[in-house]
Amino acid sequence: MAGSSFGKSFVVTTFGESHGVALGAIVDGVPAGIELSEEYIQKFLDRRKPGQSTVTTSRNENDKCRIYSGVFGGKTTGTPIMVMLENQSQRSQDYDELAITYRPGHADFSFDSKFGFRDYRGGGRSSGRETIGRVIGGAIAIKALEMLGIKVQAFTQSIGNVYAENFNLEECSENDVYMPDNEAAAKAVELIKRAKEEKDSLGGIIGCIATGVMPGLGEPVFDKLDARLSAAVMSIGAIKGVEFGAGFHVSTMKGSQNNDPFFVDEDDTGLHIRKKTNMSGGILGGISDGSPIIINAAVKPTPSIAREQETVNAINEEVELEIKGRHDPVIVPRAVVVVESMVAITLFDMVLENMKSKMDNVLKVYKN
Amino acid sequence: MAGSSFGKSFVVTTFGESHGVALGAIVDGVPAGIELSEEYIQKFLDRRKPGQSTVTTSRNENDKCRIYSGVFGGKTTGTPIMVMLENQSQRSQDYDELAITYRPGHADFSFDSKFGFRDYRGGGRSSGRETIGRVIGGAIAIKALEMLGIKVQAFTQSIGNVYAENFNLEECSENDVYMPDNEAAAKAVELIKRAKEEKDSLGGIIGCIATGVMPGLGEPVFDKLDARLSAAVMSIGAIKGVEFGAGFHVSTMKGSQNNDPFFVDEDDTGLHIRKKTNMSGGILGGISDGSPIIINAAVKPTPSIAREQETVNAINEEVELEIKGRHDPVIVPRAVVVVESMVAITLFDMVLENMKSKMDNVLKVYKN
Amino acid sequence: MAGSSFGKSFVVTTFGESHGVALGAIVDGVPAGIELSEEYIQKFLDRRKPGQSTVTTSRNENDKCRIYSGVFGGKTTGTPIMVMLENQSQRSQDYDELAITYRPGHADFSFDSKFGFRDYRGGGRSSGRETIGRVIGGAIAIKALEMLGIKVQAFTQSIGNVYAENFNLEECSENDVYMPDNEAAAKAVELIKRAKEEKDSLGGIIGCIATGVMPGLGEPVFDKLDARLSAAVMSIGAIKGVEFGAGFHVSTMKGSQNNDPFFVDEDDTGLHIRKKTNMSGGILGGISDGSPIIINAAVKPTPSIAREQETVNAINEEVELEIKGRHDPVIVPRAVVVVESMVAITLFDMVLENMKSKMDNVLKVYKN
Amino acid sequence: MAGSSFGKSFVVTTFGESHGVALGAIVDGVPAGIELSEEYIQKFLDRRKPGQSTVTTSRNENDKCRIYSGVFGGKTTGTPIMVMLENQSQRSQDYDELAITYRPGHADFSFDSKFGFRDYRGGGRSSGRETIGRVIGGAIAIKALEMLGIKVQAFTQSIGNVYAENFNLEECSENDVYMPDNEAAAKAVELIKRAKEEKDSLGGIIGCIATGVMPGLGEPVFDKLDARLSAAVMSIGAIKGVEFGAGFHVSTMKGSQNNDPFFVDEDDTGLHIRKKTNMSGGILGGISDGSPIIINAAVKPTPSIAREQETVNAINEEVELEIKGRHDPVIVPRAVVVVESMVAITLFDMVLENMKSKMDNVLKVYKN
Repeated sequence: MAGSSFGKSFVVTTFGESHGVALGAIVDGVPAGIELSEEYIQKFLDRRKPGQSTVTTSRNENDKCRIYSGVFGGKTTGTPIMVMLENQSQRSQDYDELAITYRPGHADFSFDSKFGFRDYRGGGRSSGRETIGRVIGGAIAIKALEMLGIKVQAFTQSIGNVYAENFNLEECSENDVYMPDNEAAAKAVELIKRAKEEKDSLGGIIGCIATGVMPGLGEPVFDKLDARLSAAVMSIGAIKGVEFGAGFHVSTMKGSQNNDPFFVDEDDTGLHIRKKTNMSGGILGGISDGSPIIINAAVKPTPSIAREQETVNAINEEVELEIKGRHDPVIVPRAVVVVESMVAITLFDMVLENMKSKMDNVLKVYKN
Repeated sequence: MAGSSFGKSFVVTTFGESHGVALGAIVDGVPAGIELSEEYIQKFLDRRKPGQSTVTTSRNENDKCRIYSGVFGGKTTGTPIMVMLENQSQRSQDYDELAITYRPGHADFSFDSKFGFRDYRGGGRSSGRETIGRVIGGAIAIKALEMLGIKVQAFTQSIGNVYAENFNLEECSENDVYMPDNEAAAKAVELIKRAKEEKDSLGGIIGCIATGVMPGLGEPVFDKLDARLSAAVMSIGAIKGVEFGAGFHVSTMKGSQNNDPFFVDEDDTGLHIRKKTNMSGGILGGISDGSPIIINAAVKPTPSIAREQETVNAINEEVELEIKGRHDPVIVPRAVVVVESMVAITLFDMVLENMKSKMDNVLKVYKN
Repeated sequence: MAGSSFGKSFVVTTFGESHGVALGAIVDGVPAGIELSEEYIQKFLDRRKPGQSTVTTSRNENDKCRIYSGVFGGKTTGTPIMVMLENQSQRSQDYDELAITYRPGHADFSFDSKFGFRDYRGGGRSSGRETIGRVIGGAIAIKALEMLGIKVQAFTQSIGNVYAENFNLEECSENDVYMPDNEAAAKAVELIKRAKEEKDSLGGIIGCIATGVMPGLGEPVFDKLDARLSAAVMSIGAIKGVEFGAGFHVSTMKGSQNNDPFFVDEDDTGLHIRKKTNMSGGILGGISDGSPIIINAAVKPTPSIAREQETVNAINEEVELEIKGRHDPVIVPRAVVVVESMVAITLFDMVLENMKSKMDNVLKVYKN
Repeated sequence: MAGSSFGKSFVVTTFGESHGVALGAIVDGVPAGIELSEEYIQKFLDRRKPGQSTVTTSRNENDKCRIYSGVFGGKTTGTPIMVMLENQSQRSQDYDELAITYRPGHADFSFDSKFGFRDYRGGGRSSGRETIGRVIGGAIAIKALEMLGIKVQAFTQSIGNVYAENFNLEECSENDVYMPDNEAAAKAVELIKRAKEEKDSLGGIIGCIATGVMPGLGEPVFDKLDARLSAAVMSIGAIKGVEFGAGFHVSTMKGSQNNDPFFVDEDDTGLHIRKKTNMSGGILGGISDGSPIIINAAVKPTPSIAREQETVNAINEEVELEIKGRHDPVIVPRAVVVVESMVAITLFDMVLENMKSKMDNVLKVYKN
């Protein structure tokens, strides 16, 4: 299958370019009977909109989504759901110079190498605006996961060298950078302002936690839950690294430290096997183990910076480049909802895939 | 599709359990006309065999592969290639206790949660022996990539806190841990011996570099080259993190540091656009940029350790566990060829996928 | 993958319900560099529009398509192409009675069984209007195939018991039923009028021929060219049978009659291996053999008929049903372009897939 | 994905050439907990073996299958099941002349066109022996379907112009041609003997019926149940046409004849909606309607005939060809189990796919 679709059972196919007519997604494989409205999806889209705070670009995108198919009487029908946003202004004069210049850190050169030419306006298909389609898919997945008691939440772990030290997820919505630590957030905002003044940009780390995940999601070999999640998260433009649980720290740990001991827990619903620690990040052998899923993703500094850069153009000339227009000095806060969406899409896809793992499940669905 | 296949155009499907009758792979989508022999594949398999050195398990597996289909007159025919190794001894008495005990750090519990029961002998389907099928696929991919001038090589970056400091790929085959630095390798061997004495185990980092990669591989959105590569590498059992180029370091870099400046290079074959640095790890916007592809993967310490561990069993009892049998104190050296294989499989798959990116390419194939 | 996508390399995903907001398709995997305009696609859509002649429903749909993504400067960019038609009137009062009544010959009952409920307006997702998305994909495929010298043309073979006896493809556009025989067409029109007066409907056979197809398309086992083509054609709502070349007649033929003898043909471009007859319909062993591809598809009589029918409703009551509204007395002429589209989509998909069959082809694309 | 796999959730991947080392299949996506033995699979394989009667080739293949993975303690484990038969004799001297001669009606020429060369021994990958892998997959699917009360049975509808006139499925195993009518079978055997004497061959029609199929299988658009079934059946080498229910007869029927009236049926388990007739062949709008699934497939006469034929060779010479060796004068009786297998594989695949159609089903699996 061509590369604009993600998922096997719950499939999100995005379309659209930054300055094209519209952007959106078809979400296919959504089970029938889930409540869905434009207002609900819009809340997720608003989290990735620019112009929301002092630290994001001041471009004001008036993105209003519309559902074009797959919902009837307020519920999903089991048929493909198409949701789209028309681009309000397709102003592209800022970008004319970029028609032939290859911006460092961007996909311009690699895109031209692949396709021979490109829609250069605002990054075209490689623009962050493509993630609109992902957030649409994510909003639907999150709704379905909630019906199963699964909650996915992403947040800003760090910006530059400022790290969240408290971990209070409720604080995320109280600050401009989506950090679970208002104090660290304040420092991060200062850092961002400084970078902006220096015509430079910052990176950071986005964390994501999924709770309530039943054990059993993921397939033992290639479609391991962590393999699918890492593809999901790494497919977001600016991400350069992904890790689960103890992540890269495992390289210096001993087995006796990294192995999570199991114990038997008892509550109202009976006995449960749980782990005393969660170095595994909720995944053992590629299959969810019932502990929270823990993911970290490294986000690179925004490649569009205002300071002068050396580069080349499509006719093999070396040129100096100053990128005009308004750009985020850091992409992290706006990318949080995109990571959350990709994790949710993957988890719900695996929920559907896992239904088929046992003949008992097949009989449960058909024999009653 | 069920989860034992990897790839879209070049598809590797593995089968087999640790102590079952046999293990192997079907490799489908291999273009016709590539020379292939059992001897060639065997050389790759030998690199992952145990008992090769003082630092791996002393189990001696006599793995001899056989080609069962898809090769005629010494060349691939374009039809599926099945390669298999029959298990020599299926001795499983060491494992009987493990029938119902959930080993910490292993897939036992998550596997049972998913399927209801499992082939518990030697880890069954979750055993490292499953990677035999991957190495078979990798050997074929590496052969095809060579015809295009692409070379993939993985190596040991670190074991515990011992890091390779020189980078001489030729030294990899000169030491027992596949490090590009014989001196560091000697220290790593000492560290491993100590861990073994302490009935404990170590992790490490595997690096992989691919040179000669043409720009243009990878699709702009979900099937980004880095997304596919991270799924490939993360699908290897013990891997907990993957990063490209500057990787997690990007989180503390500035845009002006992380952007690789382009320049125009001239050689006998004409003008070429290249990058002065390679923070991107050879991938921009999910598409190869012509620089070497650079990947790091974090490997967790072997979960099978000889010291006593707390755990539970399938009937909800808390038990003490001492794992018997011979196990690698570190999995890193034997996993190097597996990482190399998964990277090669993915790259050649993307080479085939990318053929379709331009109508010009379609005409090249059919119109002459 | 969920079931609204068709193709592996050239992937058409349709969305939309009969009386929903809009209908359309995302076409992904289109190579970059093909000229494409809304006017070009519209010509294909007009061929499936109702109200074009005396023998189709008098509903007047004012379907104007718009390209929302994937085309820049009049050429495909290699990224997904979204094309959509907004529904002009979503008047659904004619359909209110059908909310709970299961129309014989329609998908109402089976749809409810599957999803629990449905968008009942005008057939919802099962409406013939869904084929708009297929025609969009077909138009693009036909454009690409033309660049390779391949021409696909479907036509009306028969309506009821009136069969085309001449075979002049140019006459197709000269009569109201798309028959390659104006005389037979006149008889068919009479038959249709009579059926309409009798509040009944007719079926027929659609033929399709593809010329200029290079030998080598199709894979030897499951993805045989005829297997893929039959899935493509059978996925059109009203089709109940598909055959290739001599088709069902092979059951009474002898091997000596059915085997097409090969011979050597010479022209300006050299020697060519051709067949004296074409019982195979251009496909041997699932792979194109260089002769024209010949397909027939049986179309059932329109299930919506004005006469009274016995049926049941969703609350298990037996009821009498008279379907109101304007319906085609025969679907065949409007379905011709849909068959043509599905054949073209499949052929171009297989053209792309086949590029990967030989290492020689891989080298052709990358090594020059 | 490359073309040797069939199915989305229940995936059969076959490998092997006629005179290669071995033939078999990996069946992936089999739910855990189904009883499975080599003896059970062997019974299905024996039905396609040659040398079973006077009307099949007298080659005596001693095909004994072995399970190599995916079964533990007599039950499927949810991991890929590999089953293989080693080729006993790889005698190929009969075939040497065929190395460069293109047999009429065979895949030789189209295969060479695609791949550049081929394993010519016994048809190589295009041999009927490839269907061994399909029958392995079919046997497993049939076992799983039985647990759901679904029964699939194929039979010989006609050979040449001899048609079964009674329909008593139990008689199938009582005659040499698998016809549900012993009297017609006797006539068919006579016809076959005559054809053999004339050094010629015969075709026929295979029917297949599936009972106990729940309504709801199949997806509304491209993955219609009939689309998937027709791909499944048409992917069998000698099949040139497929039809459902009234099939090609619909082209001359009126809507009032072809529409199946619904009625309400009552039995011990309550009220049921059923159809008075079954012109639809159990499928409405691409989704099963609860009536038996009815399929017919046209089988071409065996292309390997002993009489002299005109043809060409790979070096563009026109030659006379007399095919030596022992060949079936009619392929129909041995292909019956292959059709049955492909139908069963498809049905069980759709059973698994359909589990995901409603959120209610998802909750049934996870919430109790």
